[in-house]
Amino acid sequence: MRNFLMAALFALSIPVSAQQQKNDSLALRSLSTEVLTHSKAYANLRELTKTIGGRLAGSPQMVKAEQWAERVLGDAGADTVYKQVCQVPHWVRGAKEEVRIISRRGDKPIKLNALALGNSVGSGASGVTAQVIEVASFEDLDSKKEQVKGKIVFFNYHFRPEFIRTFESYGDAVKYRGQGASRAAKYGALAVIVRSMTHGANNLPHTGSLRYDDAYAKIPAVAIGLEDADLLSKSLKVEKEVKIYLRTNCKMLPDTTGHNVIGEIRGTDFPDQIITVGGHLDSWDVNEGAHDDGAGCVQAIEVLRAFKALGIKPKRTIRVVMFANEENGARGGIRYAELAKIKAEKHVFALESDAGGFTPRGFGFTMPADKQAKIISWAPLFRPYDVYDFSTQGGGVDVGKLYEAIGTPIGELLPDSQRYFDLHHAANDTFETVNKRELELGAFSMAGLIYLIDKYGL
Amino acid sequence: MRNFLMAALFALSIPVSAQQQKNDSLALRSLSTEVLTHSKAYANLRELTKTIGGRLAGSPQMVKAEQWAERVLGDAGADTVYKQVCQVPHWVRGAKEEVRIISRRGDKPIKLNALALGNSVGSGASGVTAQVIEVASFEDLDSKKEQVKGKIVFFNYHFRPEFIRTFESYGDAVKYRGQGASRAAKYGALAVIVRSMTHGANNLPHTGSLRYDDAYAKIPAVAIGLEDADLLSKSLKVEKEVKIYLRTNCKMLPDTTGHNVIGEIRGTDFPDQIITVGGHLDSWDVNEGAHDDGAGCVQAIEVLRAFKALGIKPKRTIRVVMFANEENGARGGIRYAELAKIKAEKHVFALESDAGGFTPRGFGFTMPADKQAKIISWAPLFRPYDVYDFSTQGGGVDVGKLYEAIGTPIGELLPDSQRYFDLHHAANDTFETVNKRELELGAFSMAGLIYLIDKYGL
Repeated sequence: MRNFLMAALFALSIPVSAQQQKNDSLALRSLSTEVLTHSKAYANLRELTKTIGGRLAGSPQMVKAEQWAERVLGDAGADTVYKQVCQVPHWVRGAKEEVRIISRRGDKPIKLNALALGNSVGSGASGVTAQVIEVASFEDLDSKKEQVKGKIVFFNYHFRPEFIRTFESYGDAVKYRGQGASRAAKYGALAVIVRSMTHGANNLPHTGSLRYDDAYAKIPAVAIGLEDADLLSKSLKVEKEVKIYLRTNCKMLPDTTGHNVIGEIRGTDFPDQIITVGGHLDSWDVNEGAHDDGAGCVQAIEVLRAFKALGIKPKRTIRVVMFANEENGARGGIRYAELAKIKAEKHVFALESDAGGFTPRGFGFTMPADKQAKIISWAPLFRPYDVYDFSTQGGGVDVGKLYEAIGTPIGELLPDSQRYFDLHHAANDTFETVNKRELELGAFSMAGLIYLIDKYGL
Repeated sequence: MRNFLMAALFALSIPVSAQQQKNDSLALRSLSTEVLTHSKAYANLRELTKTIGGRLAGSPQMVKAEQWAERVLGDAGADTVYKQVCQVPHWVRGAKEEVRIISRRGDKPIKLNALALGNSVGSGASGVTAQVIEVASFEDLDSKKEQVKGKIVFFNYHFRPEFIRTFESYGDAVKYRGQGASRAAKYGALAVIVRSMTHGANNLPHTGSLRYDDAYAKIPAVAIGLEDADLLSKSLKVEKEVKIYLRTNCKMLPDTTGHNVIGEIRGTDFPDQIITVGGHLDSWDVNEGAHDDGAGCVQAIEVLRAFKALGIKPKRTIRVVMFANEENGARGGIRYAELAKIKAEKHVFALESDAGGFTPRGFGFTMPADKQAKIISWAPLFRPYDVYDFSTQGGGVDVGKLYEAIGTPIGELLPDSQRYFDLHHAANDTFETVNKRELELGAFSMAGLIYLIDKYGL
């Protein structure tokens, strides 16, 4: 908030002529009309999701996705299209996970709908059969550490409903997915089961990466849906001892080769000054990767297409980047930043869209206050599009690497977040859940911001 | 805009102490947490849509819906629940519409997916068979008036994609549904076919009311989906003469008895001062009426439930109204306003939700500038909830009648509009398209506004 206030104060001191403002207003209207009437974003997303589908780094689908991106960037009018080689993790899920509650009373086993967490180890062919211990939090785990050895730890932390922006609930809960396995292994657990990070009113499990702490044993880890989590918790209340059979067939193979796919419009006046706009091309293997992050990819491509269609010749070089690997490694962003540093490239600004293809509300930024002030001074231009929030801190994983490496000012599109965690990393992140106009309004917002940053610098 | 500027200037002159602002901020936070954690809105909506379904005024389903509303208002904690008798139109669709293209070339007839427009007359048992003439607009119709006699007029006006708020597209296009039949009948047309009022990427027809002009013959009227509209238009380009067979089985019966269903919390200090909050209980017969307007009904009920659950005792009387008939007559709102006038009731403010259960962005108002200024002075309290727009003109059909009758200041919830016309008055307005949190955030926003108006007056 303090950053925002400082930026707002700076903003008041920036003079903009009425004529300039009128021209900018007309330019944004041309962009919105172009995108809302002739956008290729929705058709491109249909093709990516329906003909290629889930595309984890290292998968055969990812190779097809790279080919798709090269073609679509060319069709959109990029002056040049090229790839950056990048080593990516190669995790494979293998055969479907099996997780069953084995009742003491000799009833039939109850099957739970589970997904192995990304980057987790497999259980081995015989699986893990062990008693379950439920914990509500890491504090609860620590207090029960004497009881954990030889058991399966069930992290039943609930996604909190009272936060307004759902990314706050995610930020609050995701540590159980990310660190739960190693925290439990520290006390001798054999495997972990994590309640999915979702408000969703269904039983779909939501996958996502974990990070093992090398100090402890690497143990299998799965996510289960909310109904099964409640069922398991209830079983533990009814029967004192509940055993689970858990088998996962995933494994981490050696790193393999992936690519960032890049399309550029070369700047007319300052071609060496680069403005990046992108999304990540990889997705989880269990869905179509429509909102996460097919939407961000086709929106970034749409920025380029709309510029070309309207004959906008940017002064600076606009670089549309399809990052190679965000979900289980962020290697795409790391590689992009590394090369930018090695080549001593001048990066003016980098924008990403990776929070779903929902109706836009604004942008989050990470940059010095005077630069943010300049952007805030343009906020009234976006108000007719119901894009109003320019004060949130943000940036995103991929462009975040550029900020870390060379301090580039970064931003991310902020779509409405209410529906995102209903489908994030779950089987229902499909094309059908994306609304054409919402996707397009996000693409327009990105195009408008890039247009102004190119015109005025940052 | 001028109204807004005046209101904003007034707002600056209203002193609010820091302590007051803090208390209000805490009160709104209590309301949001209550609604997001214990709301009954979503479960109530499920019951209304799934056990009763479509409920046009005069239908047996509407009787069940009234019983549902009485019970749910009681369960929510209303001090009193009662009904206002109200005469309502009684239009029935009858058997499924049949619309077929009859090719000159003797091919098989092509069936079009059609819905009779609400309040339209039936075609009679033998239907209408006639040549089709396509028009792009009323101007186009007028220019072709000599060719209209004895034909079926096809209004193929496209829903405009370039407006940002979709209600603007609706406002622009809906006259073809509302007035098309009489405008065509004036030149001797036998029936009309209207392109549906939607951006939707499917072939669902969208119904809705028409209004006949008594000066001309009342002719049958149907809506068709976008794919069929494009097909028909293409047929007319390929073959010079295209005939259609059109049969509708609808009819307008004599008015019947309906009811506004009302639940109240009696005010502690000023019980004779009334604040109304409502939605309309009726819906079209072809869907579940989930967004239109089951959502508005359960949100209004949730305002009352949340107040009761938190022990908020309003100073003024809060009246939750389920209006009897909005879709094809607005008789519920008219009756409510009529009785308010007859009884010389003091109405402080009336709020409605009838634009879908989507994520809220603000409120539209119709009231004098000094009163709106008071509301605008509270806008910062809603900003943490991403509710930011207090400057749009608005009010809604039902509470609009109260404004017309006795000048009551009115408002309406403004949800995000992007998805609304994908399902408005079509078969896909179902419970599944409503997101629990979006519905709840709308209910909270309404509760917060009602809370402040009750506390400070207007």
